[in-house]
Amino acid sequence: MKLARGGITFPKGFYAIGKKAGIKARKKDLCVIYSDNLANAAGCFTTNTVKAPPVIVSIGKLKNGKAQAVVVNSGCANACTGKRGLKDAEKTVELTAKELGVEQENVVVASTGLIGSYLPMDKVKRALTGIQKQLGRSEFHSRSAADSIMTTDTKRKEIALNVNGIRFGAMAKGSGMIKPDMATMLCFITTDAVAPAKICGKALKVAVAKTFNMVSVDGDMSTNDAVVLLANGASGRALPEKKFRQAIEFICENMAKKIAADGEGATKIMEVNVINAKSEKSAKELALAVVDSSLVKSALFGEDPNWGRIMSSIGSTKESFDPNKVDIFFGKVAAVKKGVEAKSSKKNLERALTGKEIKITINLNNGTKQAKAWGCDLTYKYVEINADYHT
Amino acid sequence: MKLARGGITFPKGFYAIGKKAGIKARKKDLCVIYSDNLANAAGCFTTNTVKAPPVIVSIGKLKNGKAQAVVVNSGCANACTGKRGLKDAEKTVELTAKELGVEQENVVVASTGLIGSYLPMDKVKRALTGIQKQLGRSEFHSRSAADSIMTTDTKRKEIALNVNGIRFGAMAKGSGMIKPDMATMLCFITTDAVAPAKICGKALKVAVAKTFNMVSVDGDMSTNDAVVLLANGASGRALPEKKFRQAIEFICENMAKKIAADGEGATKIMEVNVINAKSEKSAKELALAVVDSSLVKSALFGEDPNWGRIMSSIGSTKESFDPNKVDIFFGKVAAVKKGVEAKSSKKNLERALTGKEIKITINLNNGTKQAKAWGCDLTYKYVEINADYHT
Repeated sequence: MKLARGGITFPKGFYAIGKKAGIKARKKDLCVIYSDNLANAAGCFTTNTVKAPPVIVSIGKLKNGKAQAVVVNSGCANACTGKRGLKDAEKTVELTAKELGVEQENVVVASTGLIGSYLPMDKVKRALTGIQKQLGRSEFHSRSAADSIMTTDTKRKEIALNVNGIRFGAMAKGSGMIKPDMATMLCFITTDAVAPAKICGKALKVAVAKTFNMVSVDGDMSTNDAVVLLANGASGRALPEKKFRQAIEFICENMAKKIAADGEGATKIMEVNVINAKSEKSAKELALAVVDSSLVKSALFGEDPNWGRIMSSIGSTKESFDPNKVDIFFGKVAAVKKGVEAKSSKKNLERALTGKEIKITINLNNGTKQAKAWGCDLTYKYVEINADYHT
Repeated sequence: MKLARGGITFPKGFYAIGKKAGIKARKKDLCVIYSDNLANAAGCFTTNTVKAPPVIVSIGKLKNGKAQAVVVNSGCANACTGKRGLKDAEKTVELTAKELGVEQENVVVASTGLIGSYLPMDKVKRALTGIQKQLGRSEFHSRSAADSIMTTDTKRKEIALNVNGIRFGAMAKGSGMIKPDMATMLCFITTDAVAPAKICGKALKVAVAKTFNMVSVDGDMSTNDAVVLLANGASGRALPEKKFRQAIEFICENMAKKIAADGEGATKIMEVNVINAKSEKSAKELALAVVDSSLVKSALFGEDPNWGRIMSSIGSTKESFDPNKVDIFFGKVAAVKKGVEAKSSKKNLERALTGKEIKITINLNNGTKQAKAWGCDLTYKYVEINADYHT
């Protein structure tokens, strides 16, 4: 696997454009991704009971395992908008299909932004008019698309990957604690590999469970979360399934980490690795409990080696383990040995928390399975950003 | 039920004292509650896998349904302290029993404060020496006890209640989001009612489930959480069981609300009432999801009527409901009707969030059951308090 420059237009046959539709006051807020042939496709969507209309529509569109275009807007989540919201999402698909000359059933739609307001359809229509001529394959084009899906993100998130000459690209948006926020995360992955929809779906499902669902919080996704993969086969070649899966997982992990690092107000990212657990499920639960603890997050911000909060947060899950066997490390420095304070100096522990990326290892000494989760610190800035998102 | 002045020494036959043992730098940090006859007793303790030694010891002591004294320290949770911690908790019981001339099996012990450090037993011993003569029944005495169990609490929490001449008293400590913190909450309830241990246990269990376990967060309790009820029968009279339960629930709700209101850095308290749910369990889950959402909490701080975050947080639970039937009210102002934005003006919605106590009602229109949960806002101050608790 070789990283390359670029994003979703890196694989052959994919085009994109991001632009200003005027949904947001000043920034880019609408994009289209287009494949010049009909791609196999799969998606993973929010498990939230409250699903936004674009999610409902896209789940329907992907039932045939095909897609040729994706239309995304930011600045409005089109969530909790009832029947009108559904109509607006369908209309967005219809307009996009017409402009690009593709079938409506092969257009996927996504929205992100504030929950509860309606899409300004006049603006969407105006922005989509003539968009086919604006599409391109350059880095400028993929960048403009990646920019247009950002909300409180402070950094554009894209990746390009070359696996034995087969190309992959992706872009994502997401920031904040990936809590039930406004439509919190979106990710679109393109590849020119030959891959049936079923393989795409499986690879995506496995990768999402290990990556996006392990960023902060509880695996619940917000109202609009969507990860969509398009494989247009333009390279004329397939990868062995294992290799294909690895590539998708690599991309998802990269995007997930970028989302965690861009956490609202975050100054640090933490990677929590729970090892020697009795099951993967158990390891996942514990790792998520740690990255989701406001107290652990606050301590991380303060570079305070308060390991008691880690013990308490893993203990608060329903998973059973023996507290008297637990070792905890900050980086390579032992904080806990067999459930009690290790003999490391406070200075060394504090020093282990000074970097930007903090690795916390929790050894349960209770089995052979493991899982990783990613999160960020909780800062004044987080409160500031979220105390008044409306205005 | 009539509120009275005082706290745990309000019921007949109960004595207390809180004092400075030197576990904390400057403040009171140790107290004893004593009944002059052997009381029936029951406790509810943390469900955390990581249980602090004092919790393990007290669960054992209460197996006989009896207690005559309680000894509590703050400043050190004696949690994650292994065998030495267990020995220290037992030693504290032994010293207390000896000083008061009661059986060791009738002494309950509790600790609260930082996880991971050992109890300074020399200081504990010195403070307990001669403590019997310091015990008293005045308001000063109950206040000193209530003061001595505070950690990051900014306000003393006690209550006294008179039910048809039968007296109840209580004190509690707890602040913060009642997350897996340092030993987050303790509550001790005294009454001179005649009540068998079994009735005490049942009343406590029901009350705790409806009150303390409905303050912020997920019902998981921290490493040291304990609620203990002592009924010494000194009034010579019993209450009908229903009345007795009501009194215990009233006390627990009062204490739970005081804990929520004293949330670390909190400027507002929210009471979330989920009504017309298909089951009480379902209503509870949803109410807790709302009070535990960092995004809802931040919005509350900013007085931002961002109801989308409420929709998203209830949707993120595993409970099923129909989003298109949901109504949400801030106070009496409708924010959501049938799952979409209600027609209230933004001004009215914002005004509904300006008070200190915000009531949020979520009508699922999906059944007949209900549940309440309490929480507070998330503020800069919370981050400040928790970024460096150690130092």
